[in-house]
Amino acid sequence: MIVYGRNPVLEALRGKRRVTRAWASEHAAREDWLAAASPEIADDSELEALCESPDHQGVCAEAGDYPYADSAELLSADDALVICLDQVQDPQNLGAVCRVADAAGAAGVVIGERRSAHVTPAVCKASAGAVEHLDVAIARNLADYLATAKESGAWVYGATADAATRYDEPDYNGRVVLVLGAEGKGLRPRVADTCDALISLPMRGRIDSLNVSAAAAALIYGILRSRE
Amino acid sequence: MIVYGRNPVLEALRGKRRVTRAWASEHAAREDWLAAASPEIADDSELEALCESPDHQGVCAEAGDYPYADSAELLSADDALVICLDQVQDPQNLGAVCRVADAAGAAGVVIGERRSAHVTPAVCKASAGAVEHLDVAIARNLADYLATAKESGAWVYGATADAATRYDEPDYNGRVVLVLGAEGKGLRPRVADTCDALISLPMRGRIDSLNVSAAAAALIYGILRSRE
Repeated sequence: MIVYGRNPVLEALRGKRRVTRAWASEHAAREDWLAAASPEIADDSELEALCESPDHQGVCAEAGDYPYADSAELLSADDALVICLDQVQDPQNLGAVCRVADAAGAAGVVIGERRSAHVTPAVCKASAGAVEHLDVAIARNLADYLATAKESGAWVYGATADAATRYDEPDYNGRVVLVLGAEGKGLRPRVADTCDALISLPMRGRIDSLNVSAAAAALIYGILRSRE
Repeated sequence: MIVYGRNPVLEALRGKRRVTRAWASEHAAREDWLAAASPEIADDSELEALCESPDHQGVCAEAGDYPYADSAELLSADDALVICLDQVQDPQNLGAVCRVADAAGAAGVVIGERRSAHVTPAVCKASAGAVEHLDVAIARNLADYLATAKESGAWVYGATADAATRYDEPDYNGRVVLVLGAEGKGLRPRVADTCDALISLPMRGRIDSLNVSAAAAALIYGILRSRE
């Protein structure tokens, strides 16, 4: 996979994948942090062709396939917080949620196998490289994963716009799974039914929704705060 | 200004601007919500040329200039929450912050006159139309605006990554101004110096930062929660 952009390449060099080759513009190649990767010089059009994107910021690298984590292992710690995304297809949103999950110290992010964005170079970029450190796992069937999580002692909270329980009411101690759906669609019925409780953020505006990454930020930090 | 995209056009029709003309693809023109705007049929390339963007989702409209609010009036309510952005230049971030501010019921968003994204069609799109209802104001000089806000009884909190005060410690009752800086740059010294207090979100990940819109979501909902 060709990872591109300053933060994504920097974090790939520090992270869990092997970086086998790197390219940089003459300007970017002078930066200290890139020296260990011995970048080959490439001009803008070569970089854009390699990355299939204009958003390379003068640098890209060949890293191995993204090493997905084991979804069951994410819940091993007795205070693990795991974020699940139900059919979120926009790479920007997956990347942004991964960045928030990493910043907040979540154990990882679980995505479904089908109709879901997986970790692509655009996701690496949108996450500012957070996916190189955060555990991201694929569940064949998200509702089944949630059921298994409950059996292992986790409490599963689904975020829906119309839930009667406010997000700041539950006691979030112990293993917690937070499930978010795609904007406009929300959670699929079977996923929502599998949750222990549905929670919502107060909505006081004229536009009655939040982007999934903004909702994730508010909810994840809200959960952290309730734990302490 | 040509506003484009489904939500931006829908909210422009409901909002504070006069919409004088609309265009839609044959498909989009059949939708009920657009009927009142009597859209002219346009094909994809015509729409893209009108919008100067491929992100039109089959619909755009000519609306008047964006009607900025008066920055001083945003603080008139005795529990007003105002979000200030210090030199945030990315339209996506301005739009996303406006969307969160609207959803959380903030009084408005204040941006600086220079080196700051103003409300463009891309911002309307990124806000999902929230700017049509939310008050957005321009301050000639943001530090001066904050000083005036303090004189009017507001408490001014600046978000910085290294602030010793955690965001959930202050009492946020009364008039509150929250100031956020651009990613990677943070607040300018004079802006930070003008704040009553600097606050931070806990950072527990390997990537030690959040996107400004994610930070805004976590902080704004955190402030709401502390008020109740």
